[in-house]
Amino acid sequence: MNILIDAMGGDNAPKAPVMGALEAAKLWNVNIVLVGQEDAIRAAAKEAGCDTLPANVEIVHAPDVVDMHDDPANVCRKKKESSMVVGLRLLSEGQADAMISAGSTGALLSGATLIVKRVKGIRRAAMGPAIPNKAGSKTVLCDCGANAECTPEFLLQFGIVGSLYAKKNLDIANPRVGLLNIGTEDTKGTPLQKEAYALLTDAHNKGLVNFIGNIEARDTLLGEVDVVVCDGFSGNVLLKSIEGTAYFMGSLMKHKIFKRKSKLFGYNPLSIIGYLFCRQGVKEVTSMMDYREIGGTQFLGIKKTVIKAHGSSDALAFRNAVKQAVDAVNADFSAELETALKQLTEENADD
Amino acid sequence: MNILIDAMGGDNAPKAPVMGALEAAKLWNVNIVLVGQEDAIRAAAKEAGCDTLPANVEIVHAPDVVDMHDDPANVCRKKKESSMVVGLRLLSEGQADAMISAGSTGALLSGATLIVKRVKGIRRAAMGPAIPNKAGSKTVLCDCGANAECTPEFLLQFGIVGSLYAKKNLDIANPRVGLLNIGTEDTKGTPLQKEAYALLTDAHNKGLVNFIGNIEARDTLLGEVDVVVCDGFSGNVLLKSIEGTAYFMGSLMKHKIFKRKSKLFGYNPLSIIGYLFCRQGVKEVTSMMDYREIGGTQFLGIKKTVIKAHGSSDALAFRNAVKQAVDAVNADFSAELETALKQLTEENADD
Repeated sequence: MNILIDAMGGDNAPKAPVMGALEAAKLWNVNIVLVGQEDAIRAAAKEAGCDTLPANVEIVHAPDVVDMHDDPANVCRKKKESSMVVGLRLLSEGQADAMISAGSTGALLSGATLIVKRVKGIRRAAMGPAIPNKAGSKTVLCDCGANAECTPEFLLQFGIVGSLYAKKNLDIANPRVGLLNIGTEDTKGTPLQKEAYALLTDAHNKGLVNFIGNIEARDTLLGEVDVVVCDGFSGNVLLKSIEGTAYFMGSLMKHKIFKRKSKLFGYNPLSIIGYLFCRQGVKEVTSMMDYREIGGTQFLGIKKTVIKAHGSSDALAFRNAVKQAVDAVNADFSAELETALKQLTEENADD
Repeated sequence: MNILIDAMGGDNAPKAPVMGALEAAKLWNVNIVLVGQEDAIRAAAKEAGCDTLPANVEIVHAPDVVDMHDDPANVCRKKKESSMVVGLRLLSEGQADAMISAGSTGALLSGATLIVKRVKGIRRAAMGPAIPNKAGSKTVLCDCGANAECTPEFLLQFGIVGSLYAKKNLDIANPRVGLLNIGTEDTKGTPLQKEAYALLTDAHNKGLVNFIGNIEARDTLLGEVDVVVCDGFSGNVLLKSIEGTAYFMGSLMKHKIFKRKSKLFGYNPLSIIGYLFCRQGVKEVTSMMDYREIGGTQFLGIKKTVIKAHGSSDALAFRNAVKQAVDAVNADFSAELETALKQLTEENADD
């Protein structure tokens, strides 16, 4: 399997993507293609103590770089020779199975849409990160920021694509799909939610999704829903407030524990053990919510696997994104998705 | 000062509101008026070991009750004799200074708007809970669910009213107002955010708010913003995902710690101390995010103090809501708000 990595994307490029690629190449039987400025990539590899690249890591030179100020809509036209666009072109030409980039989300999304193309019938590609939940499983949030403005039909499609993702990538037999809303009653929300509720109910009755109705933000992590359907704006708010609160709780916990320790230190040595003891528990919990562990976010509805890694991804994050890409390629569901969408429109035509 | 409590509102009525009222009456120099079915209220007081009510607690009988199935829009007309509507009427007639209810949010909001009325110039009343942040201060989220659909002008007004609330109720000298968005660049978001950004910038230039620009959901708890402006839908998602994540992290922490304890129990007694030691830290942190500690949510932009207590409020929550009501009455800023809105429209007329 061939995985492309945009070596110039993200805050820590090229060092982090190159190091992550080298680690991944060691760990898994996969070929990695680093796309970007060859000299910079070789320098980063040297810095990581690797003078000659292993056999399963190659470089494809791309002189240009997409930066955060580039208008996402014009990147494909104006930055033809950037690492991101060259990578996506190789992917669309079938020279690789997946592409990973920590560069501009907007640029990667429009590039994936224009170059790699959407699955037939899909109106918009969505971002569907899978986050850990209380049940020990994962919950897919779809969409999480790719589409700030949505129509009810987009939300219906997010439910279908998210459901297939949960089935194939997370091995959930019959994923429970919930609509993010401000209350559970079917009269809640704006016209967008009310119309999406009707469309999802209809798709449920046709056996296309297992729609369980409206869910509230606080239910997301409780493990009572497998796929949360929402517009990209609220999905982004949901995801980032979960991240922020997890970070806040973790640091607050450390502070409380440390404060107690220093207060007791000298009087009660047990507190030190207590401190070390808690620290592990805190670490385990906060790391569960760590984006580096969660890995990147796959663009759902694109013909081939494209993964957006977090902008501040380090080597570990890139390494995990490679693993995620491999799994995603093995779980590819483009065909099933196309069939489901076809079935939906046909059934509607029958109405 | 006279505080009205809807004795029939909430999941634990009348017991919780009555017990909370009795506790509050003991703790603070305040008169409490319990509105609702007299027999039920007296029975609840007896159950709480109070056969005769103290001098500063009285009952106003209201035979009817607003329930969750009542259409909020019709409550004022169809449930004239309900505890909620009778209470709001007494408030508007000047027979009390504030009203607390744990009943239907929608009904309380439309009742407050129709009976107590909005401050002159305010388009919509907003819900502005103040939640703890990393800086040890509080952050106001405005709106948090009162208005699922908003116009840019609503958001501008939420910024102004939220800012005054932070100034007067939270003693923040020059509150930093941020617009909830999916990125910090001023080009981010839907047309709603883009237009609200322009209006808030304009108000900032006129010295009416200290607008610091777009903020992301993860920044909410970091204490770098004092007022988060958002439409009621995303605000509700933000608040409830913070609640949900805090609860999730707390229970996960307990689980991890407990698991370790039972694993080590018998072999290493220190782990038991460690466990007890952590438990306190976990408790401190989770209670910070406990709605009972946060208290109720004030409707901002209503002429008098109306506080929505959480539906599942217990006696402690009602007690804290009374304290909150007393503080809110003392910090009343209706006059300043009216002036600010007047100034804004005048300034705009000058443009």
